Amino acid sequence: MSRIVVQKFGGSSVADVEKIRKVAARVKARRDEGWQLVVVVSAMGDTTDELLGLAKKISADPPRRELDMLLTCGERISMALLSMALHEQGVPAISFTGSQSGIITDTAHAQARIIEVKPARLEEALGNGKVVIVAGYQGVSKHREVTTLGRGGSDTTAVALAAALGADCEIYSDVDGVFTADPRVVPSAKKLEALTHEEMQELASAGAKVLNAQAVEFAREKGIVIHARSTHTAGTGTRVELSTASTSRVKGVTCETDVWVMAVQGAPERLLEVLDGAQVKARNVLFDAGGRTMVVVPTQDIHGPQALRAKLPEGVEVLEDHGTVTCVGTGLNADFSIVRRALGVAAGLGAPVAGAYASALQLTLITKREQVKALTKKLHEELIG
Amino acid sequence: MSRIVVQKFGGSSVADVEKIRKVAARVKARRDEGWQLVVVVSAMGDTTDELLGLAKKISADPPRRELDMLLTCGERISMALLSMALHEQGVPAISFTGSQSGIITDTAHAQARIIEVKPARLEEALGNGKVVIVAGYQGVSKHREVTTLGRGGSDTTAVALAAALGADCEIYSDVDGVFTADPRVVPSAKKLEALTHEEMQELASAGAKVLNAQAVEFAREKGIVIHARSTHTAGTGTRVELSTASTSRVKGVTCETDVWVMAVQGAPERLLEVLDGAQVKARNVLFDAGGRTMVVVPTQDIHGPQALRAKLPEGVEVLEDHGTVTCVGTGLNADFSIVRRALGVAAGLGAPVAGAYASALQLTLITKREQVKALTKKLHEELIG
Repeated sequence: MSRIVVQKFGGSSVADVEKIRKVAARVKARRDEGWQLVVVVSAMGDTTDELLGLAKKISADPPRRELDMLLTCGERISMALLSMALHEQGVPAISFTGSQSGIITDTAHAQARIIEVKPARLEEALGNGKVVIVAGYQGVSKHREVTTLGRGGSDTTAVALAAALGADCEIYSDVDGVFTADPRVVPSAKKLEALTHEEMQELASAGAKVLNAQAVEFAREKGIVIHARSTHTAGTGTRVELSTASTSRVKGVTCETDVWVMAVQGAPERLLEVLDGAQVKARNVLFDAGGRTMVVVPTQDIHGPQALRAKLPEGVEVLEDHGTVTCVGTGLNADFSIVRRALGVAAGLGAPVAGAYASALQLTLITKREQVKALTKKLHEELIG
Repeated sequence: MSRIVVQKFGGSSVADVEKIRKVAARVKARRDEGWQLVVVVSAMGDTTDELLGLAKKISADPPRRELDMLLTCGERISMALLSMALHEQGVPAISFTGSQSGIITDTAHAQARIIEVKPARLEEALGNGKVVIVAGYQGVSKHREVTTLGRGGSDTTAVALAAALGADCEIYSDVDGVFTADPRVVPSAKKLEALTHEEMQELASAGAKVLNAQAVEFAREKGIVIHARSTHTAGTGTRVELSTASTSRVKGVTCETDVWVMAVQGAPERLLEVLDGAQVKARNVLFDAGGRTMVVVPTQDIHGPQALRAKLPEGVEVLEDHGTVTCVGTGLNADFSIVRRALGVAAGLGAPVAGAYASALQLTLITKREQVKALTKKLHEELIG
């Protein structure tokens, strides 16, 4: 029996018919080497945003169940087209929705977690010599409702299938792998050969788009090595692997300009309660010595910003003109020299630091949005080189 | 327990967000009268053609299974949006795919027949006070594959659900009901109060677009009365009902310009075999006294016209510049005066009749495409008035 590999192609890799043909050719080439393939696809280009736009025209706050019904069409369209493109190239292929693939989730629409994978249909199709195409980002709950895994959920689909099938896992995107910083912000950024799941999780949740944070967490739990590669080139990309030795070294610097920072003096319970009720997940919560609490939330995770603002308790200040810069590496909190150097870099730039926090794997600075890119560049220069 | 009504809204009734809102308001008004509603929707406007266009860019002959996976997204988008629009108007609603609705079909992709309906989930949702939205045109086979019912299949979905639920059946479109002819061709055409299933079947299969022929056949088998009504007005439309007395009267005249007429002299077996192999269903097969066979096929039912043409046996002539005009009414073949008058009308117009055939319910003339509309108008004038 030949080895199985799960390959995931994101929305920009399948954005049009021509690109879908190229993905098909790439899949065919891998199959010709003797591999069995499961290919997970996202929705084509902007399809998800277009569908979301239609829903928003009808309702400012559409029911999540119906939104999931709507959005899952995106991957379904791309999976059927990729299957057709493979047939056209003489490769037997068959597409399956998340539900048909046996991806069982909890019932949390729009942010479901995978609780089990029953890949019997996929194994049968692989056994029949077919390339299997799977719609990413979606599953089915125990109540037989269609669910979605949240933005970037196709990565999670790929990892979950790799775990269930004992397969390798390759995630393709427009970039060559994971970089020490976004090359558009820091031109001297370099591709990493490897990093740990934990480091990748911190990079992803602090704004790096190359891999989804939940997917990486899932891979860590299941012990799956992820290969992050480019759709367009033949390089080996970046390995995201199990933690080896602690290195106490900054592996990457990432930033996010599109966040809300909510700040409140004194007891933060009422604010956290409101956020919880609105199903807003904080990326970070920071309590400082002066009794001030800061909550950082990516803007895209706020459904209905006006409604949320109306519900915020008195005394909560919303800083909409701030952003975050995050240095990621194992053991950063234990190395005060890095925290000190980072704060020194910010001061030297004249970037006001509204808050900062370090954990086992990352150091984040909150600063004014207009300073975010300059600070990212300078920290990369000082801490990575 | 209040009565259930199944309402079906076609693609042009849900073509954009504004129209979806109007359908929602109409559904709400009916619910406020105390009815339980099941609403079957087609894909928005041109969605199906757009998806088909994407597939055709990839493959001239895409696998039917994958095409069904692709096309079923169209209804799924409109059902989710309609459900959202109802929520927005304060009406609890829930959408279900064909599969979730328990619409079990055979395995003939692209032209599946419904073999069973298991509406348990729909009944449960109705019992919970919800308006149920169902994706038309689709089902699931015993092999758990997504299937489609062919063009116009949403009508069939509505009829099948009405039969399974013991419900009334209303089919909404842009026109006020069934007319004696297409008013764009025959300005004096009048709306019919009622006609039989058989008459409607003949009208539909000869080109009248208002109701799908298979749906009407299904309604006849199940004894379901169909109310064909306008989405935009409050009229009672046209009843399609069980046959009562035979009337021997022309109820309507319809035409089709977009057909292939294939003609062959002598034994037609090889031609029919090729058509069967290409899954092309003839609308009519006509043998004339001179030993010539003519097969009429709507162009839209020919998948891959170039491939089909290459496969046709020698001696088969394809008349691509012909069309058909059909008079429908119970007992037409028994009334030679009607056949004689029809042929007289054609002769008077100078429209060459390449072939003609009458059955229990219809009389069809094959003529040159450019004569089709004039002949339709004149026959309506002479036989209906």
